[in-house]
Amino acid sequence: MTFTVTVRDHIMVAHSLAGEVFGPAQRLHGATFVVDASFGASTLSDDGIVVDIGLATDALRDIAGSLSYRNLDDEEAFAGINTTTEQLCRFIADRLAERVASGELGDAAGRLETIEVTLHESHIAWASYARPV
Amino acid sequence: MTFTVTVRDHIMVAHSLAGEVFGPAQRLHGATFVVDASFGASTLSDDGIVVDIGLATDALRDIAGSLSYRNLDDEEAFAGINTTTEQLCRFIADRLAERVASGELGDAAGRLETIEVTLHESHIAWASYARPV
Amino acid sequence: MTFTVTVRDHIMVAHSLAGEVFGPAQRLHGATFVVDASFGASTLSDDGIVVDIGLATDALRDIAGSLSYRNLDDEEAFAGINTTTEQLCRFIADRLAERVASGELGDAAGRLETIEVTLHESHIAWASYARPV
Amino acid sequence: MTFTVTVRDHIMVAHSLAGEVFGPAQRLHGATFVVDASFGASTLSDDGIVVDIGLATDALRDIAGSLSYRNLDDEEAFAGINTTTEQLCRFIADRLAERVASGELGDAAGRLETIEVTLHESHIAWASYARPV
Amino acid sequence: MTFTVTVRDHIMVAHSLAGEVFGPAQRLHGATFVVDASFGASTLSDDGIVVDIGLATDALRDIAGSLSYRNLDDEEAFAGINTTTEQLCRFIADRLAERVASGELGDAAGRLETIEVTLHESHIAWASYARPV
Amino acid sequence: MTFTVTVRDHIMVAHSLAGEVFGPAQRLHGATFVVDASFGASTLSDDGIVVDIGLATDALRDIAGSLSYRNLDDEEAFAGINTTTEQLCRFIADRLAERVASGELGDAAGRLETIEVTLHESHIAWASYARPV
Repeated sequence: MTFTVTVRDHIMVAHSLAGEVFGPAQRLHGATFVVDASFGASTLSDDGIVVDIGLATDALRDIAGSLSYRNLDDEEAFAGINTTTEQLCRFIADRLAERVASGELGDAAGRLETIEVTLHESHIAWASYARPV
Repeated sequence: MTFTVTVRDHIMVAHSLAGEVFGPAQRLHGATFVVDASFGASTLSDDGIVVDIGLATDALRDIAGSLSYRNLDDEEAFAGINTTTEQLCRFIADRLAERVASGELGDAAGRLETIEVTLHESHIAWASYARPV
Repeated sequence: MTFTVTVRDHIMVAHSLAGEVFGPAQRLHGATFVVDASFGASTLSDDGIVVDIGLATDALRDIAGSLSYRNLDDEEAFAGINTTTEQLCRFIADRLAERVASGELGDAAGRLETIEVTLHESHIAWASYARPV
Repeated sequence: MTFTVTVRDHIMVAHSLAGEVFGPAQRLHGATFVVDASFGASTLSDDGIVVDIGLATDALRDIAGSLSYRNLDDEEAFAGINTTTEQLCRFIADRLAERVASGELGDAAGRLETIEVTLHESHIAWASYARPV
Repeated sequence: MTFTVTVRDHIMVAHSLAGEVFGPAQRLHGATFVVDASFGASTLSDDGIVVDIGLATDALRDIAGSLSYRNLDDEEAFAGINTTTEQLCRFIADRLAERVASGELGDAAGRLETIEVTLHESHIAWASYARPV
Repeated sequence: MTFTVTVRDHIMVAHSLAGEVFGPAQRLHGATFVVDASFGASTLSDDGIVVDIGLATDALRDIAGSLSYRNLDDEEAFAGINTTTEQLCRFIADRLAERVASGELGDAAGRLETIEVTLHESHIAWASYARPV
């Protein structure tokens, strides 16, 4: 038995990717990433929820806001890291997990077992990262 | 190896949610829930299917019909239960599992191992519940 | 030549519809309406925009917020009005037009010629209302 | 009577926008624009088409390819132009219209009366530009 | 001022297209066409609707059912007609207009001024046909 | 920890299905299948990727191209096989796995652990098949 709750937000960023495998994406370009954050647990709180969806939405918006309208090539948080869609999934999932651990997502979030973050980079490509809490 | 088949329907309901965590959703309001029911198995029938998609569609429509155009606060089935998206996912999944057990979804459904129900409450939020059959 | 800019939000409401034509929707039920507001003009501002998308988003969110998590049957604004999807489209479009007229959507909005509002009530039904500004 | 045919592609670009109205989007950032190009006519060719969809797809892909994986701030084509979503719609529509005029979209395209280009910048915002051919 | 109401259904058909312009689509192949039927009017009925959405849904389902799970190359209705997406849009719109004229869509439909039918043949291509009623 | 990368393409085919369970789908008809291919791994390459998305896209396009604009009833590859959505998911996933094994998807693909293929047959039905690499 697994319950999940998912909320969606988005970021709009510039970046470039280092490595021949990326072809033209080695040039500075950009992307809208539509971000889905899924929170999973095997039980519900007394209120009947996996997580307070309001707090989850706020946390995702806050993390998205810290990334959006930026050139990721200039952000310290990504120094030495290729900001591939996969890496950005992990980055956002890890930030969400920290906030769960700190209690910021409320009491119900104490039961969370997994976080999965999916980034849609276009209508024909997306990536995800799933991790335990 | 896992095969799944998913069918989609929807319900339009009124309800209210008890608990401070729900903020303005404590007031009577409503939602369209777009409902996805996924049926999973590790093998296919001789016909090459997981489940008779016609029977699965009918079963989902029947369950959706029993919920739709109603105020869930007045429904006996939900007495004492907060009708959160998570709970509604479980309610629908459990009703589908009963119908599988009763043979209503046909012979192929005998191989079903899992049912997952996802309810989309808006373009930016959804929940799901997965259970064994 | 026509430019449009569209922003999306949503509302979650309870309501009932008076009239035999509505069948089971005469009962108290509810809906998520995903709301698209389109602003049209035949020229762009010096900045190259139809309307300040930030102000347009704020205006739509504010109007959506005034409707959401409510039972429309109890709202004075809709006394004596069937809150069909069509009527709600018109209601929201008219509120947006008032805000354009009041200058709340900024200078660029002075060139707006049309507003169209679309409400999606499910994955298989939607309605719209288009009007001059 | 109006027929339209629409094809979809996408571009991934970096850019910045000049003007206080753009707030944080004045910084270098980026976007995926999902691009829909619609071709309209009031009659069909003898083959029963508005336009050769293969040629239309190729033309859109070619134009999209000339923009994608670039920093629009450095492109000569946009010197002195704010690359708002509205302006990019017009730019792509105008390039398509030139190709129609040159015969590149085939014989059927001779009957085209309108071109409309829509750019989706996220799941909650898009813009369009419609022009005669 | 224009109101529209749109309902969605789908058909799954085989067909082939005659003419060099169609390339590989000259071979027998098939398509799912997701069908959107839009009904437009400049006023609402006393009930606050453009058209009885139940009757509109039934009419579209009936027309879709008459086409679905068939090889259009063998259907008398299309003898001598290339069943392009554009032509199928017109075919369905014309059948809907006949039903409106016959009174089958109810009293409110008497005010209908336009019908537009859109057929989505994939996630990257669609066509439409708009006509007066 | 699991990373996935997904790319989307589509096929348009005719076919018929043998077996009473398929009702009207026993007749020759057709479908657009929107195809999502997901590649899963628990680690990333030094470049920060699960798989070279360009090579993955090319491989999927090549497999889709070998199926598209055909009558599957006449294809040797499917002799004696009901081309249900489930079976087509498996067919495409198996072809992708062969290409991964042959090295065609590049070095990063050496870490792939799973492939999942989802075929959307309409806006209300889809199927998937997941397998180890």
